[in-house]
This record gives sequence, structure tokens and C-alpha cells, in this order.
Amino acid sequence: MALVNEHFLKLPNNYFFSDIEKKVNLFRVTHPKADIIRLGTGDVTLPLPPACIEAMHKAIDEMGHEATFHGYGPEEGYHFLINEIIKNDYAARGIHLEPSELFISDGSKSDTGSIGDILRHDNSIGVTDPIYPVYIDSNVSCGRAGELQNDGKWSNVVYMPCLPENNFIPQIPSQRVDIVYLCYPNNPTGTVLSKNELKKWVNYALQNDTLIIFDAAYEAYIQNPDIPHSIYEIKGAKKVAIECRSFSKTAGFTGVRCGYMVIPKEITAATLAGKRIPLNPMWKRHQEVKFNGTSYITQRGAEAIYTPEGKEQVKANIRYYMDNVQILKRALTEFGLRVAGGEDAPYLWVQAPNGMSSWKFFDKLLYEAHIVGTPGIGFGPSGEGYMRFTGFGKKEDCKEAIYRLRRCL
Amino acid sequence: MALVNEHFLKLPNNYFFSDIEKKVNLFRVTHPKADIIRLGTGDVTLPLPPACIEAMHKAIDEMGHEATFHGYGPEEGYHFLINEIIKNDYAARGIHLEPSELFISDGSKSDTGSIGDILRHDNSIGVTDPIYPVYIDSNVSCGRAGELQNDGKWSNVVYMPCLPENNFIPQIPSQRVDIVYLCYPNNPTGTVLSKNELKKWVNYALQNDTLIIFDAAYEAYIQNPDIPHSIYEIKGAKKVAIECRSFSKTAGFTGVRCGYMVIPKEITAATLAGKRIPLNPMWKRHQEVKFNGTSYITQRGAEAIYTPEGKEQVKANIRYYMDNVQILKRALTEFGLRVAGGEDAPYLWVQAPNGMSSWKFFDKLLYEAHIVGTPGIGFGPSGEGYMRFTGFGKKEDCKEAIYRLRRCL
Repeated sequence: MALVNEHFLKLPNNYFFSDIEKKVNLFRVTHPKADIIRLGTGDVTLPLPPACIEAMHKAIDEMGHEATFHGYGPEEGYHFLINEIIKNDYAARGIHLEPSELFISDGSKSDTGSIGDILRHDNSIGVTDPIYPVYIDSNVSCGRAGELQNDGKWSNVVYMPCLPENNFIPQIPSQRVDIVYLCYPNNPTGTVLSKNELKKWVNYALQNDTLIIFDAAYEAYIQNPDIPHSIYEIKGAKKVAIECRSFSKTAGFTGVRCGYMVIPKEITAATLAGKRIPLNPMWKRHQEVKFNGTSYITQRGAEAIYTPEGKEQVKANIRYYMDNVQILKRALTEFGLRVAGGEDAPYLWVQAPNGMSSWKFFDKLLYEAHIVGTPGIGFGPSGEGYMRFTGFGKKEDCKEAIYRLRRCL
Repeated sequence: MALVNEHFLKLPNNYFFSDIEKKVNLFRVTHPKADIIRLGTGDVTLPLPPACIEAMHKAIDEMGHEATFHGYGPEEGYHFLINEIIKNDYAARGIHLEPSELFISDGSKSDTGSIGDILRHDNSIGVTDPIYPVYIDSNVSCGRAGELQNDGKWSNVVYMPCLPENNFIPQIPSQRVDIVYLCYPNNPTGTVLSKNELKKWVNYALQNDTLIIFDAAYEAYIQNPDIPHSIYEIKGAKKVAIECRSFSKTAGFTGVRCGYMVIPKEITAATLAGKRIPLNPMWKRHQEVKFNGTSYITQRGAEAIYTPEGKEQVKANIRYYMDNVQILKRALTEFGLRVAGGEDAPYLWVQAPNGMSSWKFFDKLLYEAHIVGTPGIGFGPSGEGYMRFTGFGKKEDCKEAIYRLRRCL
């Protein structure tokens, strides 16, 4: 008989975000007239930038004529897009990358979820706590995370708590770890790493032969000019770090699906016998086996983000979301809550009042204010007692939410 | 230090299709004026059906307005598409499926490449030989295929040769196998399985507790009304078979990326302790961890295939490709070659003349006729001495190719 991969059975039955939807749906059934405001969603609400719309219309017209039709594209993505990324996201910051060091994908969940496929199942991993659950789940499902312990932590995972005591900045672990996941600007805490803090991580990785998976999905939200947008702004990072980026939050591509991963040629990992193997060609091979490229239409849409109009439109959208975050942050602070993040990221990390648990705070907000947040506990043990709010909603909803929160809190 | 997944290093360095491109590019450099005809490509050449173009334009316009914008979609796909698939591809053939039994994806390579993630790494696998290389490669890279032996076969893979002796119809293996891959209509041989032949496989699976991965990517090419389009036309198949389908060859979606996988609720695999685990919720969980849904625009394009205009346009495209196949088959047979397939599939399986090897025949065709075929050896040991031709080219190229082949053969 065929046997299942039993590591999969260790995963919690439901994806955390599905659990939230179930609670909200239950509330809707019992309160059919309630006007729910979603302050927790990680999904964008503004439409696609007009430059992308125009480019995709054009691409579709090309697909409708034999002379300009595009069939299978390169698994690693089209050079027209790769070149724009290199020029605008990297060369402009003094980072030199070759086209073959980039891989266009259908989004960061695919990339961060699958990068572990090319690594051994028993590497130790380190994560900030709280953290985006997919990093953990993808390691659980291949056995790399080990076993779930009573404290809610996995046995083969080193947790780096981000708490008020350390300003939500993770400390370098005292032991060595094979693979470290870092997401900055951070989801869910909305905090960032200064150049100095990031340097510590790169140096740790260089000294300990650690691989860093750096998720920079929210880099476009950075306002402070001193905060690094790419880990490659740090010397030596190309030897130790893979960087993921996404157009989801930059340009509203959550429903269009496009992102990319940078795997520099210098990055290696070892065989058991100690031979160093470059990861770039391994990932290329992975994509050849398990992926057939991102839609041509989508890639043309992503390319348009880098036109002068596209850049302006993206900036305006980000300004809109960041305004929401600022409005919310001011109000929540005024109501006496402790709030982190939101300066260089679309996320606020809000401590529940009076030592309430995440889910209790969630229920209170849902039932008393008809507001949906994202319970911090879903992001890891150190998220207990917190709630994630985002700026991705509509301005009028943010204002109405503040009005309701004032009465509820 | 981070360790690599060493199974990956067992893969041949280059993806087979990349090897062909390298040979063709070398030829181009030395013969810059040669007019190359691609008879081997698995990629389509006709533009997208107008119904799809129109639907995608509309979807893009929706994405440009706040009120109709679509962000993250369901990982398993939108119901508007799932319902059309169920109605047209299954209910119309008397097969009852529930919406939750379907998973929309970005194409069959992702599905067949990743389905092994939810299965144990040491299940034995059975494949027809020749076979689409991705089935093997995805199993090699997770260790399931075992070790490559001197005869070009993998130690944990049971090969079922398809040769002239058995009319290219694989025989049921004498031992039991945990997972069997079947692709019908077949790539690369272009042959099909009759209802009786397919019944034998379903019965074998029921008796041996075997899981069948049934790839029906080419079902739209079936002309003979007695040939099953879906494995679920066979009684009992829902207990043992997962079915993959793709819009790539049906509607020219190779560059747009959309397919789907059916995992009936009844299908289970076992834990080591013998507990039966349904695979449907496991795959849903897999997609939640590693996938974020297929582009909304793409899914609207795929939905349009099921409109009356869409169906007519798809039929016309398939007729065009099948005409090409028929023209080629007649000519090649006339030139004295042995040709299988091409009646219910867009592929021809052509035996090289005079016992020539696949690559030798490839070189002869490339250098003497400027024609590119796909060497059969790339599809497995039993493909040696064969060449795959397809009907996906342009009619005028097929006719010119016949003229050149007549002189060359």
C-alpha cells in the first residue's frame, strides 16, 4: 500500500488563517446585520496600478495573435522582468546581481515554502518568534522541525523571542543553527532591523556557516532611509543569504501572483562528506522539475511596476496604506495600548489590554466592535497576548474602526 | 553548516529539454541561415482562443477597480471555475465529483511534481517506459527513486516497457507497486488505453492497494468515442486514482499556466501503523503551506473555455493540431518508418531507421533536414531508437518538413 508522509500529520489540522475565517463566518451567521471591519487582513484592497493594468491588457492581446503568442516561458522567468528588477531594486542600491541569480516565481509562499526541498531534512532551523506560520509549517511537513512539544515549540527549531524587553529585535542565538529565517520589515510585528542589527546576523552566518532565508516582502514600505531594503547591502551577505521578494504588497499582486528569489552564485551548502555545493543551480533544477514558469501576462504586469508611471502609482498606494497604519497607531496608543511597528511596515503589533489572551482579545473585538484582527498566538508562542493589525484596509474603515475601538477599549 | 538534500545531486545535471535547446543553439551558431522546423516541441503555437482573451481582458478591468478587485483567492481555486470543470469534464460523462475534490493549480508540472510531498519517501513507484521525465525526476530528488543503475534505470522504480511487441501498451507488473504513474493519452508515444486496458489497472490498484497518478493532460485530443477521457469512468477508480489535467494543450495555456488535480474523498494512503489517511485534506494542507492560489485573471480565462464559443474555438485548435499529426503520420509511414500514436493524441512515436540511436537520428534530422525532433531516449531506456514528433507546429511547417524528410530518409 502507498504510505503517507507522516510528518504532514503533525501539522495543526487547519491553516491558522482558515481558523480565523471560520470564527468570522460563525459570527456572520449569528449577526447577519453586523458591519464587520477587517483590520487584521494581510490582503491588499486597492486596485492594481493602472500601469500594470495597461501592460497586462497589452500582453493578453499579444497572446491572441499567432505572431506574438507566448507559450512556455523560461522556468526562471523572462529577462525583460529580471533585468528591471536588477536595475531598480539592486543596482540602484549598489548591489550587483547577474540575471541567472534571480528566479521569478508565482509568489513568496511558493519560494519560502519550497526552498527547503533542496536542503537536508535534518538541518536545524532558527526563527524569530512570532513568525509567519508558513516558515514553520513547511519545515514541519518534511520532518525538519522535529516534534511539537508541550510548550507549543518544535524540537528542532530554535526560537528567538521578539518581546517588549528587546524592542522586538531578536537576539543572535547562543548556539549555532543551520538555517535562519528572517523577515524584515517584519510580519507580524511591523518592526525593522537597522543596518547594524542586520550586520550582526550576516556576521553570525559567516562565522557559523549558517544559511539565512531573508524575506523582504515588505521592503517597499520602508520610510527611514537608513534601514536596509536588501540583505545584500551588508558586506558578505551574498555568501550566506537567499532573499525573497514579492509584488503582492508592493503592487497589489496578491491575486495576480508574482514574486522572486535571489540565490547568489556564491551561496553553498554542504554534503555529509563536506563537499560544498552551490545552491543556485540546484534551485534552477528544482524549478525545472516542479514549476513551469510564471504567466507571461503576469510578468508583463510586474515589469510595468518599474516604469516611471508604475513607480509613482505604487508609491501612492503604499502612502495610502502607511497613512492608515499611522492613523491606527496614534489612536491605539491614545487608548492606552502598547503598539509596536508601523513606522516602516504595514503592520502594527498590539498588546492586548489587561493581560488578555490573543483569542480572547480577538473575540472581544469581534463581538463588541465587529472588528477582525489577527491573533498574535497564530504567529508563535511569543505572540500570545498580541494582535496584528494592518494598514491594508480602506481609510474610511480605519476611521470607523477607531471610533468603535474608543468605545470598546 | 547547512546541508544539501543530496538526492538532488543524483539528477542528471541538465533537464532533458534544456539539452535539446543547447544542441539547437549550437547548430544555429554554425548554420545561421538555416530555417529550422520544430517537429518535436511540446509547446503549442496557435494563439489563445478569443473567448479566453475576452474573459481575461474583463478580469483585468475588474482588477483595476476597487469594487471589483480580487486579492488572495482560495488556494484550491475559485468555485466559478471548479463548477464548470465538474459540469463539463465530469458530470457530462456520468462522473459525480464534489467541488472540494478539485484543486486548481498553475499547471500539471506543479501537481505531478509535488504530489509526492504528501507521500512517504520510500514508497515504490511504477512507471511506463518511456515516460515524461518529470515523474522520475521529482521522485529522484526526494530519494524515492533510489539509485541510478548502469542500465539507466532507478533501483526503486519498476519500469513497464512500451514496445512494438506489446503495441506500446504497458503490462501490469508481476509484483506489487505502491504508486503507479499513468499518462493517457500518452506522452511521448501518443498511444491510448481502451476502457478494458484501463480497467485492468484500476483492478490491479484495488487488489494491491496501489495509488494511481493518472495524468490526462491530453484527453481533449481523444477522437475515438470508446476511449475513456477520465480514469473515473472506470468503476472503483475513485478509491485508487488521483487525476491531473491541464489547460496547456487543451486551450494553449502553456504560457498562461493553469491546470487542476482531482483527489476524491475516498482515496487514502496508510501510516506505518496501518491507519488509513485520506489524501484530499492532506493535499489541501499542502497547498495552504506551499501555494497561494492561481491568478484570478488566469482562472477567468480558463472558465471561458467552457462557454459555447470557447468550446468551439478549442475544438477548432485541436482539429488543426490533429490534422498536422495525421499529415505527418501518413508521410512518415509512406517513407517506410514505423510510427505509433497520433490517432487520439498529438504525439507520434517514430522508430529511427536502420537501428539508429535516438541522438544519432536527432543529429541526422537537424543537420540534414534542419528539423528538430525530441529524442526518445530522453523519456527512458525503452525510448532508445525512437523520436517523438508532435502536431503542435504550423501546418505549412509540417508540409515543408515532409518535403525535407522525403529527401533525407
